[in-house]
Amino acid sequence: MLLGSVEAGGTKFVCAVGDEDYRVQTKTTFKTTSPEETLAKTIAFFAQFPELDALGIASFGPIEIRRNDPKYGYVTKTPKPNWSDTDFVGTISKAIKVPIAWTTDVNGSAYGEYTAATLFNEKNDSIVYYTVGTGVGAGIVVDGEFLGTTGHPEMGHVRVKRHPDDLTFAGICPYHGDCLEGLVAGPTFEARTGKKGQDVKSDDHVWDIMAYYLAQAALQATLTLRPDKIVFGGGVMSETFLAKVRTQFAELLNDYIEVKDLNEYLTLPVVKDNGSATMGNFALAMKELSK
Amino acid sequence: MLLGSVEAGGTKFVCAVGDEDYRVQTKTTFKTTSPEETLAKTIAFFAQFPELDALGIASFGPIEIRRNDPKYGYVTKTPKPNWSDTDFVGTISKAIKVPIAWTTDVNGSAYGEYTAATLFNEKNDSIVYYTVGTGVGAGIVVDGEFLGTTGHPEMGHVRVKRHPDDLTFAGICPYHGDCLEGLVAGPTFEARTGKKGQDVKSDDHVWDIMAYYLAQAALQATLTLRPDKIVFGGGVMSETFLAKVRTQFAELLNDYIEVKDLNEYLTLPVVKDNGSATMGNFALAMKELSK
Repeated sequence: MLLGSVEAGGTKFVCAVGDEDYRVQTKTTFKTTSPEETLAKTIAFFAQFPELDALGIASFGPIEIRRNDPKYGYVTKTPKPNWSDTDFVGTISKAIKVPIAWTTDVNGSAYGEYTAATLFNEKNDSIVYYTVGTGVGAGIVVDGEFLGTTGHPEMGHVRVKRHPDDLTFAGICPYHGDCLEGLVAGPTFEARTGKKGQDVKSDDHVWDIMAYYLAQAALQATLTLRPDKIVFGGGVMSETFLAKVRTQFAELLNDYIEVKDLNEYLTLPVVKDNGSATMGNFALAMKELSK
Repeated sequence: MLLGSVEAGGTKFVCAVGDEDYRVQTKTTFKTTSPEETLAKTIAFFAQFPELDALGIASFGPIEIRRNDPKYGYVTKTPKPNWSDTDFVGTISKAIKVPIAWTTDVNGSAYGEYTAATLFNEKNDSIVYYTVGTGVGAGIVVDGEFLGTTGHPEMGHVRVKRHPDDLTFAGICPYHGDCLEGLVAGPTFEARTGKKGQDVKSDDHVWDIMAYYLAQAALQATLTLRPDKIVFGGGVMSETFLAKVRTQFAELLNDYIEVKDLNEYLTLPVVKDNGSATMGNFALAMKELSK
């Protein structure tokens, strides 16, 4: 079987083909430019594989995911220039005539981690995946299905209790100021400290402040969804930082409900080299084919 | 068909029998005392109806809802004296030999509202139900199933951004201080103003403060679950108060995603006279029977 994956990010596209064991055979990466140019490159990549069976696309958003909506398959009102109201799936499917699965980038990653857990003999009925990078987003898989009736999750924009040492920072979200994304997205490093994230030392107090906010996000997801595990991916995350999140999560939860060992409950992605979304897309493509 | 309902609250039990159209035929209410006495009264009530087909129980918690757990059907570690580790379902099922559905009190109410919506020709695939009374809890129904893999939701204990005019109030939750429940449960009126809730005038600023917190809860539920509607029940709620919640919710959301008309999206219970849980229990009993 030959499966395709498009991980459509705001800065780059990763296209890949692989087999039913989720092994990547060929992969290419290119910059996200105009919709016309970027989707043409995507089509050109997959046109090399006429034996392709199905395709999974995980896209930056917001996107329309309700199958009965006339705009199903579109990138909708996005702040990304020129991409608003782009018929992503329609454009691809005119050229590549295979079943196409369509979801958000974070849902794709969530599904990859959900799938990977099974491969590692770790049964998870539900997974939450947060990405913390240029923005903050989350995907949720429960019993093999994505959560969200009227649309996909947008958990990057919840409000959180402010850290006592961070009360004056206004936050950088253009819509909400100090929502979660406005407080912990990558660019907040520069906004708070004048330094880029990679130049901020690991013992800088700003990490504790950000860990406090992510711990609250994990707490919200825990108390709402009671998932098997919560995965944190994205450029801002590291094992050192996640350890801080675990510590603050434990303090906030205060043993109110039982969760498993925090080293297993709050984790980095199991799939290496940012491959979660690609694996998720392969699995979703296969699922789409079996429909 | 004769269906039974037990709404097991921390202060009172409401037992009822009704038909397949969810019409209550007989109902009784008694105080929650010791588990032995209270469950004996429950059994005595249903023993009057040997033709009973199935029973739905919605209980205060925390409770064990995982069917494969040895403690399935138990009230687990509850702060309520004498009730910790009570085999609720086991005790009832020894005397009343019918299929029994078992969930939390708020899940029962959520299911009642989910069911009622259908009766009113209002299709909802997902509903969130918050109760705001002595405590704060929430239940979630998605596509006819309760959400929560490792346990039931405990959304009363999330953290929220503090209102600028409420920064010094420590909150009253014995576990977390200023979690949502610690900031908006009924007894916070007395803690903040020295007056009981029913004596606090509707133009008192404390209502705006509490509306701000509930609006954040509604925002979290919205951005996480993207539900069809969010219902607010419980003794603290009223249309006047909910109107304030809607206003603050709109400000917080800032049109980031589309939700339906707020008067339909954030509502009081459709089922009157606190009957949501009873209707939910009838519907769950019928569902259990059809398994």
